[in-house]
Amino acid sequence: MSYIAPLKDMLFDIEHLANIAQVSQLPGFEDAGLETAQAVLEECAKLNEGVISPLNWEGDKYPSSFHDGKVSTTPGFKDAFKQYGEGGWQGLQHPVDFGGQGLPKTIGAACTEMLNSANMSFALCPLLTDGAIEALLTAGSDELKATYLEKLISGQWTGTMNLTEPQAGSDLAAVRSRAEPQPDGTYKVFGTKIFITYGEHDMAENIVHLVLARVTGAPEGVKGISLFVVPKFLVNPDGSLGARNDVHCVSIEHKMGIKASPTAVLQYGDHGGAVGYLVGQENRGLEYMFIMMNAARYAVGMQGVAIAERAYQKAVGYARDRVQSRPVDGSLNTAAPIIHHPDVKRMLMTMRALTEGCRAMALTAAAAYDASHHHPDAEVRKQNQAFYEFMVPLVKGYSTEMSLEVTSLGVQVHGGMGFIEETGAAQYYRDAKILTIYEGTTAIQANDLVGRKTSRDGGQTALAIAQQITTTEAELARSGSAHAQAVLKRLTAARLAFEDAVKFVAGHTKADPNAVFAGSVPYLMLAGNVMAGWQMARALLVAEQKVAAGEDVAFMQAKITTARFYADHVLSRAPGVRDSIVEGAAGVTEMALEAF
Amino acid sequence: MSYIAPLKDMLFDIEHLANIAQVSQLPGFEDAGLETAQAVLEECAKLNEGVISPLNWEGDKYPSSFHDGKVSTTPGFKDAFKQYGEGGWQGLQHPVDFGGQGLPKTIGAACTEMLNSANMSFALCPLLTDGAIEALLTAGSDELKATYLEKLISGQWTGTMNLTEPQAGSDLAAVRSRAEPQPDGTYKVFGTKIFITYGEHDMAENIVHLVLARVTGAPEGVKGISLFVVPKFLVNPDGSLGARNDVHCVSIEHKMGIKASPTAVLQYGDHGGAVGYLVGQENRGLEYMFIMMNAARYAVGMQGVAIAERAYQKAVGYARDRVQSRPVDGSLNTAAPIIHHPDVKRMLMTMRALTEGCRAMALTAAAAYDASHHHPDAEVRKQNQAFYEFMVPLVKGYSTEMSLEVTSLGVQVHGGMGFIEETGAAQYYRDAKILTIYEGTTAIQANDLVGRKTSRDGGQTALAIAQQITTTEAELARSGSAHAQAVLKRLTAARLAFEDAVKFVAGHTKADPNAVFAGSVPYLMLAGNVMAGWQMARALLVAEQKVAAGEDVAFMQAKITTARFYADHVLSRAPGVRDSIVEGAAGVTEMALEAF
Repeated sequence: MSYIAPLKDMLFDIEHLANIAQVSQLPGFEDAGLETAQAVLEECAKLNEGVISPLNWEGDKYPSSFHDGKVSTTPGFKDAFKQYGEGGWQGLQHPVDFGGQGLPKTIGAACTEMLNSANMSFALCPLLTDGAIEALLTAGSDELKATYLEKLISGQWTGTMNLTEPQAGSDLAAVRSRAEPQPDGTYKVFGTKIFITYGEHDMAENIVHLVLARVTGAPEGVKGISLFVVPKFLVNPDGSLGARNDVHCVSIEHKMGIKASPTAVLQYGDHGGAVGYLVGQENRGLEYMFIMMNAARYAVGMQGVAIAERAYQKAVGYARDRVQSRPVDGSLNTAAPIIHHPDVKRMLMTMRALTEGCRAMALTAAAAYDASHHHPDAEVRKQNQAFYEFMVPLVKGYSTEMSLEVTSLGVQVHGGMGFIEETGAAQYYRDAKILTIYEGTTAIQANDLVGRKTSRDGGQTALAIAQQITTTEAELARSGSAHAQAVLKRLTAARLAFEDAVKFVAGHTKADPNAVFAGSVPYLMLAGNVMAGWQMARALLVAEQKVAAGEDVAFMQAKITTARFYADHVLSRAPGVRDSIVEGAAGVTEMALEAF
Repeated sequence: MSYIAPLKDMLFDIEHLANIAQVSQLPGFEDAGLETAQAVLEECAKLNEGVISPLNWEGDKYPSSFHDGKVSTTPGFKDAFKQYGEGGWQGLQHPVDFGGQGLPKTIGAACTEMLNSANMSFALCPLLTDGAIEALLTAGSDELKATYLEKLISGQWTGTMNLTEPQAGSDLAAVRSRAEPQPDGTYKVFGTKIFITYGEHDMAENIVHLVLARVTGAPEGVKGISLFVVPKFLVNPDGSLGARNDVHCVSIEHKMGIKASPTAVLQYGDHGGAVGYLVGQENRGLEYMFIMMNAARYAVGMQGVAIAERAYQKAVGYARDRVQSRPVDGSLNTAAPIIHHPDVKRMLMTMRALTEGCRAMALTAAAAYDASHHHPDAEVRKQNQAFYEFMVPLVKGYSTEMSLEVTSLGVQVHGGMGFIEETGAAQYYRDAKILTIYEGTTAIQANDLVGRKTSRDGGQTALAIAQQITTTEAELARSGSAHAQAVLKRLTAARLAFEDAVKFVAGHTKADPNAVFAGSVPYLMLAGNVMAGWQMARALLVAEQKVAAGEDVAFMQAKITTARFYADHVLSRAPGVRDSIVEGAAGVTEMALEAF
């Protein structure tokens, strides 16, 4: 099943919801208007549709394999990655100074989606490399930048994030890997890291590991963690590759999905110590790692959108082809393609509405990111930063949770064929399940949302966003169309439910943390639902104007119907979730642990 | 991870919700009281925990394989099936006249759950055999009964259901397999059947295929379908095995889950015609097949409960063992087992509440089944029949859909380890996905619920059940406890939502079928939610009395908390779903097919 990039929907969001015209007024983004966006997205679509997407099922059939310390990736991956690098895609959002394209996230995010729709297992290598680049840009010394950035940005080398250890998963305070300072200013790194995505592979000349470890004598807990660069091959002063470093892959995991992406166990320092270079200052590793994490979390959210889009396209294709049973309304006297059946349409609409809603939410957040970095006015930067930071756990948490629903429906649309591996729908179902886990589980995102993003400022940011939603409600009320009225009803109810939840969370986190955290994931799901639903409501308003103007009517009608569907079938879940959050703690907190 | 049968919860339901004392007053079930139930369940637990459960992961690692027309099952399956048959488990609910135990479904259903928790792939062989037995009992001639029933009931032979063909999945009207009458009264059967569970295997001496086919000259559509027995080996008059029949397995499927269960493509009549024996009368095949289907649909619902229970147990085990992060309430100064974390508790409670709710719903339905067959009063039989038939699509549809949520949470509780196949949680996630598809997808169940079970009698049965729920509401109101009040609030709101939906469905199916069927699956999910939630409310009332009497207090407290959780976190979804059903059709019906 081939993949077709949803350029039209992406460009609709980029133009009307993310407001690319405003982004292109930011210093440094002068050339990044709608035309650039369109040109970049079209070029990106070509590579992903033609080269990278066909390797997706191949990767499931012929996963990465491990032999004698070496990892062989799926045939075709190495060449595709070469094309990816040479096309400049790794550097799309990175600075021109180091060979990047310097484009805004508002455009880059859509490219991230395409790459992940095409091939999520493949896309993980660039995704992690982006994180390494981000960390070096933010905290690396000039020497580290000079040594590593250009090669990472060109795709000659790749990057990894080494956080997890057997005893330290969600809890990084438990990291035990250690780094011994050497007289020459380098460190010797020792320890075992697990779940390292593309920790070893054959697609690039060198692998630049970003590694969390404790310097000898550092404090316990998260305040004693430092960040190191540990390259697979040491780099000579002239940039050529030197000796093999003492970091070795000892095995890769046998996983339910993303089988082509090698998940490595890395052993550091078994032969005297791996040479490591400190990034930034000692004991500030977690802070730097969070820079990578935040970029990665947003990207994983886009993976949720991406795999949902792919599953949707496949399901639509099958529903058009598969003939079975007469329509219930008697409109045809013979068996019809199953897309005629209302429940199949409902499933496809659910998939579509969730995907479009989350895409709109993510692209709107991307525009805020761009403004938060590039706007000349510090106050505007700050507001956008607050908005973006509130959205990151939602983009990550909600979009990935929704991708489980969407990929499950994708299998369901296929009926019995969906359960047969060769059909391909099952792969999306299996692949998607990692998304709610890695780069921080949904619960970890929810902790972030409750703690740093809601309670810390007493719910101010959240309530300010709710206030912005009322502006959209007022516009819906002015529209007066039946669809706008229906969406208004649901959006208002959902926004009120969100406000209730915000007040509950902000008001009780300190006094009754167990009660608040018993509802933390429902709170994330409610917030994500409202934010995505809000963007769909904004989309409806734009689409109604376009229809009135006779522009692109079929597309705009579909957008209106999809927004209506989102409201009646997804936003309608919000008040019930509010009840679970605000009134539902007893069912969790009162359960004795022995009773499970 | 070992499986421990939840005997206590099963017996609680059997005693207090299904009311086994009343079942044992039915003619023929005099010996089937609580003591019998307990003895049978304990014996059943031994076999499943000790013999069948350890083969579950083996089956995933070493699936059934196909070679030269033969299927080899997972090592150990053949011997386990021998023990299953010799223990009398295949005959548990079947008539004593043919070697069965003649026990009520109220007891048998709990045994079905255990077997499926232990090993869903294995359990499919007995499940399909039950269907074949049921069809022969209902419609088979004395000769067919004499030839096949004892051997099927003893486990010497197994049975299959042959419905699906490449062009005929959900739509059996499209069946093309044909049967030519022979002068000796037999038929020659020709055709291709796909997705035949245990259509070929090495666990029994003979396989008795129940096959849908059209007799030469039969009318088109569902009214021209007949049912045939086609044994793998012909049976001599003395009961010994004769010649190999002309039915051959040509391949088995490569599936996402239930890998140990061979899913066969069977070719009938490639060498002159397979000898078949008509079951009942010509052209009534679909009617007989529905007997098998209804039994099988209920059983598949129990598979949903079963795999949810297994996933829950595994998640609880991991949550107790895995140490990570300090509790949010500061109650411990060190990292704690993750079961201390509120969101992990919430996930486990969701898994538990859904599982217990669906178990209670299914066992209550089983008691109605028993009364519908055995009660001396025809009017009581009829009422119970109506109740049972209303419940079948809910037991099948809701319990299997919930099992997707539960097995997904099961992976989630394990974090990154959940995605590693060797952990075992992923297998449940992969296995469960077939449950919403086979024996009629959730949409097919919803069609049944909307058409035959709701619209046909103008919603009478559904509204009568709603009326019964108000009795429970009155009892909750009388209890006065805070938990009862909270549950009352949710149950009332959910019941009202259900009534609205029933009236909408009953009132519009004829006039606006597209609008009704656009909400058919949401209607099923709402109805299932309310029925399971109702049983949890009844359970809470029993448990409160027991606590007051000082009986089994820890268990009863946990039941109360679980009922409370179900109300606040699951029943609370009901009003939103009502909105989707009653007000949400436009978002489905207005979408142009070309716009997807």
